[in-house]
Amino acid sequence: MQGEGLLRVTGDDGERTDAARNRRLLLDAAAEIVAACGPDRLTTDAVARRAGVGKGTVFRRFGSRAGLLHALADEAGRSFQQAFMAGPPPLGPGAAPLERLIAFGEASIGRMLLDGQILRAAEQRGGPDPEHPTQQLIRLHLAMLLRELEVQDPELASYQLAAFLNAGLLLHLQEHRGMSDARLAASWRVLVVGLAAARGRA
Amino acid sequence: MQGEGLLRVTGDDGERTDAARNRRLLLDAAAEIVAACGPDRLTTDAVARRAGVGKGTVFRRFGSRAGLLHALADEAGRSFQQAFMAGPPPLGPGAAPLERLIAFGEASIGRMLLDGQILRAAEQRGGPDPEHPTQQLIRLHLAMLLRELEVQDPELASYQLAAFLNAGLLLHLQEHRGMSDARLAASWRVLVVGLAAARGRA
Repeated sequence: MQGEGLLRVTGDDGERTDAARNRRLLLDAAAEIVAACGPDRLTTDAVARRAGVGKGTVFRRFGSRAGLLHALADEAGRSFQQAFMAGPPPLGPGAAPLERLIAFGEASIGRMLLDGQILRAAEQRGGPDPEHPTQQLIRLHLAMLLRELEVQDPELASYQLAAFLNAGLLLHLQEHRGMSDARLAASWRVLVVGLAAARGRA
Repeated sequence: MQGEGLLRVTGDDGERTDAARNRRLLLDAAAEIVAACGPDRLTTDAVARRAGVGKGTVFRRFGSRAGLLHALADEAGRSFQQAFMAGPPPLGPGAAPLERLIAFGEASIGRMLLDGQILRAAEQRGGPDPEHPTQQLIRLHLAMLLRELEVQDPELASYQLAAFLNAGLLLHLQEHRGMSDARLAASWRVLVVGLAAARGRA
């Protein structure tokens, strides 16, 4: 029985390694398709073909096209999270809270060029879900900095700031209103400097 | 020919009167259903039954359930527009721009109780469309007040403020985060006082 158990564990490990390798293969293929043709061209067929696996493997790993998009968005989010939680200042720890807030907005705006299409496509129908774990993490981070700045009601202020940084809006402003990253970043700066300055005034 | 033309015009007028009456009847029936049961219960069948007309009449006037929801949202928006563009101060003209901005946020938050369900249901899949005429009008109004306050880049700042006032987010904060109107209004006040204070600082 114990031997069988050990064998099963080894089998599982092999399966897990295969699964991880397939997952990586599929995510890379999907990212390449999105980068080359945009998220509209991302179909489970196209990903399976590019990765050289059966379509069933895509469904087994991600459930659906939407699942694949969410996995891509999560992956894009993870490196961003790493940067603002543990990366070098001013985005990461070590800089003053206002500097970190400003850097957070600039980084959020800057990553739209690379990740915006995926983030927008992965956003739920009816707009971004404020309780998605990634959104929660972003708000926790913003609220922490706002609290350090002694902004009134940092929790609610974090919703206000996150509402402006959502992918749908930033991409809309960049693509349809022709607003540059520099202009978006300048306006973000006014907003957070203003919030910091409003402390005790309102 | 002329007589026929005149007759046709008279016919059109009669039709227009009928159309307007039917439209009113259907919108009132729809508003009653939403108020009593929420927008999920708003079906074209239910509206036709309550208004005592055929289902075809609903489709002829509004095209679909979505068309009916948009018409309801437009109607709710129109009285709000009337209030902030031509109503009494501080929401309407006559108050100082900062007072008007504060009043605008308070009124937007307050109307969610009545109109929020309709506004949210009418919002496009993928979130609110920033170029919907109602959204454009709201931003023009915000930008005008921000310009009077000499806020940097009033156009972009109007997108930032409008992003926080969208129905989906306000309802989420009220319903799922249990935030009171007073709390939402206080945070709005900090935001706009901050923007006004940031003038020339950032």
